[in-house]
Amino acid sequence: MAAFSYTITSPIRCQSGNSYNNDPTKNRIKVNGTSNRLSKVDPLSQTASFQTSSDAFISENGSIPKEQIRQNIPTKKQCVDPHRQGLIIEGGVGYRQTVVIRSYEVGADKTATLESILNLLQETALNHVWMSGLLSNGFGATHGMVRNNLIWVVSRMHAQVDHYPIWGEIVDIDTWVGASGKNGMRRDWLIRSQATGQVLARATSTWVMMNQTTRRLSKMPEEVRAEISPWFIEKQAIEEAPEKISKLDDKARYMNSNLKPKRSDLDMNHHVNNVKYVRWMLETIPDQFLEDHQLSSIVLEYRRECGSSDIVQSLCEPDEYGILARDSSEENEMSLLNRFSLATQIIQGNGLLGSLDKMPPRYTHLLQTKGEAKSEEIVRGKTEWKRKLPAMPFPSK
Amino acid sequence: MAAFSYTITSPIRCQSGNSYNNDPTKNRIKVNGTSNRLSKVDPLSQTASFQTSSDAFISENGSIPKEQIRQNIPTKKQCVDPHRQGLIIEGGVGYRQTVVIRSYEVGADKTATLESILNLLQETALNHVWMSGLLSNGFGATHGMVRNNLIWVVSRMHAQVDHYPIWGEIVDIDTWVGASGKNGMRRDWLIRSQATGQVLARATSTWVMMNQTTRRLSKMPEEVRAEISPWFIEKQAIEEAPEKISKLDDKARYMNSNLKPKRSDLDMNHHVNNVKYVRWMLETIPDQFLEDHQLSSIVLEYRRECGSSDIVQSLCEPDEYGILARDSSEENEMSLLNRFSLATQIIQGNGLLGSLDKMPPRYTHLLQTKGEAKSEEIVRGKTEWKRKLPAMPFPSK
Repeated sequence: MAAFSYTITSPIRCQSGNSYNNDPTKNRIKVNGTSNRLSKVDPLSQTASFQTSSDAFISENGSIPKEQIRQNIPTKKQCVDPHRQGLIIEGGVGYRQTVVIRSYEVGADKTATLESILNLLQETALNHVWMSGLLSNGFGATHGMVRNNLIWVVSRMHAQVDHYPIWGEIVDIDTWVGASGKNGMRRDWLIRSQATGQVLARATSTWVMMNQTTRRLSKMPEEVRAEISPWFIEKQAIEEAPEKISKLDDKARYMNSNLKPKRSDLDMNHHVNNVKYVRWMLETIPDQFLEDHQLSSIVLEYRRECGSSDIVQSLCEPDEYGILARDSSEENEMSLLNRFSLATQIIQGNGLLGSLDKMPPRYTHLLQTKGEAKSEEIVRGKTEWKRKLPAMPFPSK
Repeated sequence: MAAFSYTITSPIRCQSGNSYNNDPTKNRIKVNGTSNRLSKVDPLSQTASFQTSSDAFISENGSIPKEQIRQNIPTKKQCVDPHRQGLIIEGGVGYRQTVVIRSYEVGADKTATLESILNLLQETALNHVWMSGLLSNGFGATHGMVRNNLIWVVSRMHAQVDHYPIWGEIVDIDTWVGASGKNGMRRDWLIRSQATGQVLARATSTWVMMNQTTRRLSKMPEEVRAEISPWFIEKQAIEEAPEKISKLDDKARYMNSNLKPKRSDLDMNHHVNNVKYVRWMLETIPDQFLEDHQLSSIVLEYRRECGSSDIVQSLCEPDEYGILARDSSEENEMSLLNRFSLATQIIQGNGLLGSLDKMPPRYTHLLQTKGEAKSEEIVRGKTEWKRKLPAMPFPSK
């Protein structure tokens, strides 16, 4: 059995502007290559900072439940997490995580799926809270939120993907938070290729708090504001003038009905996970279109929670442009796919209609619960697409 | 912007028993905290060992395609990969990867799903090949396999989960390979909690080679045997006497028909991914059973590839035991769930029927394509279950 072990006391300092623990003796990275990790855990290392002195983590008989030892949520701010490959940046308030794109996160074309990207955004956001020392045992809820029986709910998400990360690529994901109105929080992300430095994707989102029992939105309690506002910065990943997403109705061109959440679609909050929403949305777009196009932007406006017993309907409608406007006579109607194809050919062709290159194909989406009496909106969406590039020029042999 | 950078020349030596490159100057770990990674990449570091001298990676005009720089598959054996948190062990032939269980890899109960575990097995297996320097740009295929137009196909997989990893838990996944008959390969895994040292799960699998064009199984060419056999060891993660899985037919008690692979279910080999099979299998078990039980073992016997145009049927049947044998009279038949529940109560109760504790609930599974003329088996399965423990004793506040 191979065995090596070394500890580095690095020149890293926790760049904190606030009053969290900043013990430089904790800035150690432990690399440990033995099979018996238990006896090698350094009680001062970054990842073994479980605080036995914290009341919240001691069970009634005084022992620490084994699950907490295994989970080991930090109770104080951490500046480096070698296992998560996470790092506090931005003067002590932002978070960067280095991630390798895994084999099961890519599709048949060996590039990361949109779902994988959204999953990684969620993961890095939670790890940011994890590193902050503020994480309670919920889905990103702080200790103050738990005391007030509050959970986070996302109200809006906008992601832009310029280049999809590829299998095995090492990417840096930066995330940070800022104020959004009086009671909300903005969270942004930037994904960069480590090999080229190129920005691959960016995203912004807004979050509000909901009472876990009443399921009603809540103001941000002062206690919570005091926890999170020291982490707020102004920087924005996407400069945008949000556009209203119109509401689709039963006349929408494409529709998938009778979608039922599966057990495996529920997340730690016992709701259908946002990423599942996106899958339902995109699966409603015709295959032929998906074959030739890749998503470059998605905006999601969340309206209502979706629980495990809801029956969901997914509607979508391609956006129409003036020059390609729909002929009101159904008989003369040119198939939409042909029109898109035409538009794309014009765009990619001789540039006769140069202004068209500002008109990528777009779809409007709606997910709604379909009750017997009425429908209720879950999420509205807008997606923007571009023509797929030819397959990657890897040598076949 | 935070910035730090340091390089460690560690005492790690590549413990290789074979002739791969073992340049100690490459045993450097680079930790880099700047936003401009491009200018900081150390051309001698473990993760930047892209070899411009390799013919296979040079395009016709002599330049290296950008995708290859981004993907950066090593052409020589690596002993440490700090980004994958991977390490060559077992005297130079095994692989260990440290993984943090991510928020989207767990279900509503905050423990990793079986699908996530299977995904991580796939990922570590591929990273083992990645580290070996043998990986071509396929799904684990070596250079010799690519030259012979061969791909890997899994013929059998057996996974046992004693304890499900929990959200945020740091686990070490060890994987290694061995011979399986004359033309096959065995691959095993062991998943351990780093905090407790406890083995959480183990798995074994057998693999054979298939001609990518003819889709027929192939002997292992000598060229490929020479590549991979130096990596073979005898150790087994699971000592087992494989039991034949009987074939279900249309009389199976539970059935889901008309299952259609989605675009997102296809992997890099353009086939429905194995993990999707497992989802289809488990979704056929009644919800009421899944509510109270968790899977402790799964055996999969693969028979046939499943492509994107196949329509799939999932059958399953609970195993019957002597004492709880099915009453042939349908009217008197006790519902299976009640019988399982009864059995579990007896097992967990006063031990009157001590021998029953060797009879956990089991299901037999079959996935088949459902053509108009005939059905073809895709995979047979056997699952074993145990009663779920009560929810984790985390403090709610």
